[in-house]
Amino acid sequence: MTKKAKSAPSGVTLAKGYLAAGVRCGLKSRGEDLAVIFSQTPAQAAAVYTRNQVCAAPIQLCRKHLRRPTAQAVVVNAGIANACTGPEGLADAAEMAQRTAAALGLKPTEVLVASTGVIGQRLNQEKIRRGIEAACRSLSRGGSAEAARAIMTTDLAPKSAQRKITLGAQKARVALGGIAKGSGMIHPNMATMLAFLTTDAAIDARCLRRALRSAVDETFNMITVDGDTSTNDMVLLLANGRAAHCPITDFRSPEYESFRSALVDVCRDLSIQIARDGEGATRLIRIDVEAARSRSDARAAAKSVAGSNLVKTAIFGKDPNWGRILCAVGYSKARVDPDKIQLWIGGHLVVQQGRPAETIDPQQLRQALEADEVCLRVHLGQGRAAATAWTCDLTYDYIRINAEYHT
Amino acid sequence: MTKKAKSAPSGVTLAKGYLAAGVRCGLKSRGEDLAVIFSQTPAQAAAVYTRNQVCAAPIQLCRKHLRRPTAQAVVVNAGIANACTGPEGLADAAEMAQRTAAALGLKPTEVLVASTGVIGQRLNQEKIRRGIEAACRSLSRGGSAEAARAIMTTDLAPKSAQRKITLGAQKARVALGGIAKGSGMIHPNMATMLAFLTTDAAIDARCLRRALRSAVDETFNMITVDGDTSTNDMVLLLANGRAAHCPITDFRSPEYESFRSALVDVCRDLSIQIARDGEGATRLIRIDVEAARSRSDARAAAKSVAGSNLVKTAIFGKDPNWGRILCAVGYSKARVDPDKIQLWIGGHLVVQQGRPAETIDPQQLRQALEADEVCLRVHLGQGRAAATAWTCDLTYDYIRINAEYHT
Repeated sequence: MTKKAKSAPSGVTLAKGYLAAGVRCGLKSRGEDLAVIFSQTPAQAAAVYTRNQVCAAPIQLCRKHLRRPTAQAVVVNAGIANACTGPEGLADAAEMAQRTAAALGLKPTEVLVASTGVIGQRLNQEKIRRGIEAACRSLSRGGSAEAARAIMTTDLAPKSAQRKITLGAQKARVALGGIAKGSGMIHPNMATMLAFLTTDAAIDARCLRRALRSAVDETFNMITVDGDTSTNDMVLLLANGRAAHCPITDFRSPEYESFRSALVDVCRDLSIQIARDGEGATRLIRIDVEAARSRSDARAAAKSVAGSNLVKTAIFGKDPNWGRILCAVGYSKARVDPDKIQLWIGGHLVVQQGRPAETIDPQQLRQALEADEVCLRVHLGQGRAAATAWTCDLTYDYIRINAEYHT
Repeated sequence: MTKKAKSAPSGVTLAKGYLAAGVRCGLKSRGEDLAVIFSQTPAQAAAVYTRNQVCAAPIQLCRKHLRRPTAQAVVVNAGIANACTGPEGLADAAEMAQRTAAALGLKPTEVLVASTGVIGQRLNQEKIRRGIEAACRSLSRGGSAEAARAIMTTDLAPKSAQRKITLGAQKARVALGGIAKGSGMIHPNMATMLAFLTTDAAIDARCLRRALRSAVDETFNMITVDGDTSTNDMVLLLANGRAAHCPITDFRSPEYESFRSALVDVCRDLSIQIARDGEGATRLIRIDVEAARSRSDARAAAKSVAGSNLVKTAIFGKDPNWGRILCAVGYSKARVDPDKIQLWIGGHLVVQQGRPAETIDPQQLRQALEADEVCLRVHLGQGRAAATAWTCDLTYDYIRINAEYHT
């Protein structure tokens, strides 16, 4: 295979031993729409899937292939979700894995498959076949940016993040990177949040799964655009162990914690990019909940505010409508005492002991809401747990994008 | 007190022994904004309140007054929610009860209080006092329509419903009626779904509470406008026993079931009026889920579809986007097998065994979506349980109403 060196390694190819490519195969109306990510040596693999019971064929296939926890390649198409397509759809997903395996000299079970796009349509295998062959021919160390573009649907910008850390007594340099796509949760049948992460860390399957689960809980599971969980959501992490450190096999070790922490950073970075690029969004909204009774309380309160149409619409309108925020905290599952709640909007205290603070300056508040990123901070006065959620505002453009598209 | 006979008894005054009035006291920018409902004899009372932990002062007062299950009057103001107002707010609510009691010759604990409007502001007691006095002076058998107008906030139309049944061996004529307000769940700080129901049925407190709980679960709890549960939601039912039948004391009796069934009818009628008048709505959406494994599964699936921004926006755009409906069923808590799902949109079969039906005619489908009321029917193929939910479409006007209002 030819290796183009168009750009420096980044995203999914930052870590040693990974190549990527993004090509056009013709499933979307324009632009790249098929990506391949390849690890030159077998990698430990961990995945987190949508909890939607109506899950797409590629998710079903990945679950099967990941009964063995190693993989070497990922093939992704955008434009068609291959969801609600029955046994034929499952055969199509299997064929994607087979063709990719054939082009790369792997077994089909070493290939993972993801799709995003319109629900209920079959893939055109002829286009897919040509796309896979072209992508496998053009795999390169600089191909991450193309791959990031190829997995986009209604996303306005490609999403990429990376970190470098040193690990263990050997001070080994370890890289982590990833690409993602988001937008609606589902746009006009365009499904899905997808994220693909790679690292050259050496880590056993159990620790890898644990680190991924924990990172996803703090990041991808704490963003919401419109509360809809797609049929195709998937986060995938490959670790090929090419970095020169002793393998991580104990989740109580400092090396595990360093790795997990860097993974959280990469995932958080991608999550924020997804929330900021939500359909129709003009502003990123960050919700910090603190002094909750438990971590699950903090998460529930933060996600409840992030999911409130009324809060999201108020922030679009630059309206410091604190009543809606308190209201969303109150109907969450978090244990709260209304008389103990404090709330800051953009750094300004607006609610104290559950009542309007005397210091509110409406003018200052409205200015705070002009910012690109609006931070809502809720102090529950119940305990010591905290959590953060992210979302975007709800705008006319969300309605336009989702109402004016016709299936 | 003067009894005007402007119109025939209806809504909350259809049943024997009830009077009502709606007057302007000046809390809203225009129109009536204070209502009193009065039972000439003590009535059994049952109430269902918001589950929001941040609950308004009048809710807290009603809980206290209804430790004794009888009441004789309800006073309601619109414009200010009396929520997040601390101990002063609670004192304000108590003062509303006291003043109404004084005007009607009752004990304060025989008066129930409800509020809807802006969160975080104190009531102007001088306006409230004059309003209560005026309302109590103008109570009448024909006052239900005024009362229904006085409890509106962003509602475009007043909401009223009623039923007459015959009960028992005596074939006694029994009336039930009610008024309600809805709109956002919360609009720009305008909170709340409120419903007030009256009947002349003779029924003990235990049966009355059971019937109300059950009717609310099937009706008010199955509508959603934007998924936000307000700080002030309340459904209240008074039964003064003026009808000439043997009191209902056994919830296994046919009389109980007749009463409950009529109560469900009135509540459903009001619920549909609320969903149809949701902020910015152009269409009522009805979701019938059938063949679910359990009733709670059917309810979960129906409410999940009703709560999906993507489904609601698609229907605004007249887009028969069945993928979004299946997706919302899939992420509900209902147990589903995607391969068994059938889906009809406006009577047209679009999904069979989890896949697009071969008979889909996009033209016919789009026509079905032109209707004022769109019915989505989901057959889960799991069992025999069914449930229905109602919502409205999500439109540009929802964003306008909720973003362009400034607190």
